[in-house]
Amino acid sequence: MVARTLPATGGRLAIIAGAGALPHHVAEAARRQGEDPFIIALSHEADASWAGFDHTVLAIGDFAGISRTFEKEGIDRVVLSGGVRRRPEWRDIRPTLRTLATVPSVLRTLMSGGDDAVLRMAMDLIEASGARVIGAQEVVPNLLADTGPLGAHVPTDDDRRDIEAGIAAANALGALDVGQGAVAVGGRVIALEGAEGTDAMLARVAALKVEGRVSTRRRGVLVKLCKPHQDQRADLPSIGPSTVAGAEAAGLAGIAVEAGRALVLERSQLVENADKSGLFILGVERGG
Amino acid sequence: MVARTLPATGGRLAIIAGAGALPHHVAEAARRQGEDPFIIALSHEADASWAGFDHTVLAIGDFAGISRTFEKEGIDRVVLSGGVRRRPEWRDIRPTLRTLATVPSVLRTLMSGGDDAVLRMAMDLIEASGARVIGAQEVVPNLLADTGPLGAHVPTDDDRRDIEAGIAAANALGALDVGQGAVAVGGRVIALEGAEGTDAMLARVAALKVEGRVSTRRRGVLVKLCKPHQDQRADLPSIGPSTVAGAEAAGLAGIAVEAGRALVLERSQLVENADKSGLFILGVERGG
Repeated sequence: MVARTLPATGGRLAIIAGAGALPHHVAEAARRQGEDPFIIALSHEADASWAGFDHTVLAIGDFAGISRTFEKEGIDRVVLSGGVRRRPEWRDIRPTLRTLATVPSVLRTLMSGGDDAVLRMAMDLIEASGARVIGAQEVVPNLLADTGPLGAHVPTDDDRRDIEAGIAAANALGALDVGQGAVAVGGRVIALEGAEGTDAMLARVAALKVEGRVSTRRRGVLVKLCKPHQDQRADLPSIGPSTVAGAEAAGLAGIAVEAGRALVLERSQLVENADKSGLFILGVERGG
Repeated sequence: MVARTLPATGGRLAIIAGAGALPHHVAEAARRQGEDPFIIALSHEADASWAGFDHTVLAIGDFAGISRTFEKEGIDRVVLSGGVRRRPEWRDIRPTLRTLATVPSVLRTLMSGGDDAVLRMAMDLIEASGARVIGAQEVVPNLLADTGPLGAHVPTDDDRRDIEAGIAAANALGALDVGQGAVAVGGRVIALEGAEGTDAMLARVAALKVEGRVSTRRRGVLVKLCKPHQDQRADLPSIGPSTVAGAEAAGLAGIAVEAGRALVLERSQLVENADKSGLFILGVERGG
């Protein structure tokens, strides 16, 4: 565990919740750590029902509303969690007086920045409101993948070759701020993750195998690494039970994620499913 | 035009034809150059009807049959053309006596080599039969993209930024022998081509735009480069009218291909369609 646990600060924790199951897991795990998280669910993005939590729904560009919420709820720490599928358009931006001067550069970043640049900008704007942005792993340290196998299965020598090939590709992509994931089968990288996300990439691999364009005799591995320059407070790459299901449907032998820099959601369920399906789950170092 | 035109050699030209429209275009273009090409259509791969050409159908691993055909037809030059979707399995390999000793390394390459490695191996095996492997562009030099715009439209400054981003990604992928194509929208690379091919990648981009995961206000560019270490006799990256249709469906502003190292099929039809759709087609240098 590389993450530190924060001392209680008196202030309240906010979770700005995007798409996917991750924010809900983070919120529940935070509660188990004694926090009383306030949820800011992004409109058009958040999927989960937040009925059990204090929450509000705000548009992603509504910095004025977010800033007001921070003040009203006494927020001093913020976790950004979940995907943001739609980038805010310029007309969605509602700046505060304090952030008004930054609008031109905000727009520039929204138009053309990579995901990392957009996230960094969002974090800067939030911190300008006086709250500190922290990583989900700082609230819930046991979300991080450890080094080595997480379940009962371990990679074979062939799988290790796929892991090496996937790491090389994910590194090359990550350096360009493009994606975090790659699938290698039989030592060849056959799929690279762009804006479509991991689940869609795994579905593509399953289709390539059905069409016979990728050998079904070789299983293959999904590799997910943190981008080299990624801010650790932004969403780290994550896997969950649905990733295991996708990997199984694609006939893969297992999943390798970066130890200490990737989140493992619903770990006990994930490991149970992986063990049952014969898939390995491995925490690896970026160097391979 | 960087390619040289070959002198008539007395021997006959063979085209080993895989999937897609490319082999037929090459065969017809070769005829216009005065050749009388003999077609070896790969079973399970070749789509086109070869009724108008002397041809035979052989399995991809049937080196014995290919070697026999070379002898019978007096083949002295071979063009490999079209995609090979299915890699031959070990049980498909029918070596000649001369190639028997190479079988273990052939199998190793088939199992785990990148596309380039497999192609290089196939070419070595063919040349062991006494024929010379040449690039389609050596028979039909005007297939190669030139530098600069091919049609009426030219990229804007925004498009040029997408071209730069796409070149950086395609270079990184190509160095890993993974793919040749990338799509950038608004300066961000959003899709990378793996084993699924260009058409499937363009369909994915169209879907990402429909889902709102990529802005539809920005158009974007498809970039296709030759892999840095690619054997020039192997199939170079190619575009044709179907690529233009896919790019249009994905809402792209245009297509950039590597000048001198990418094939433009049915050029007049392609340019007419691109002009009508408002898409630019640009030959670029690898350096950007």
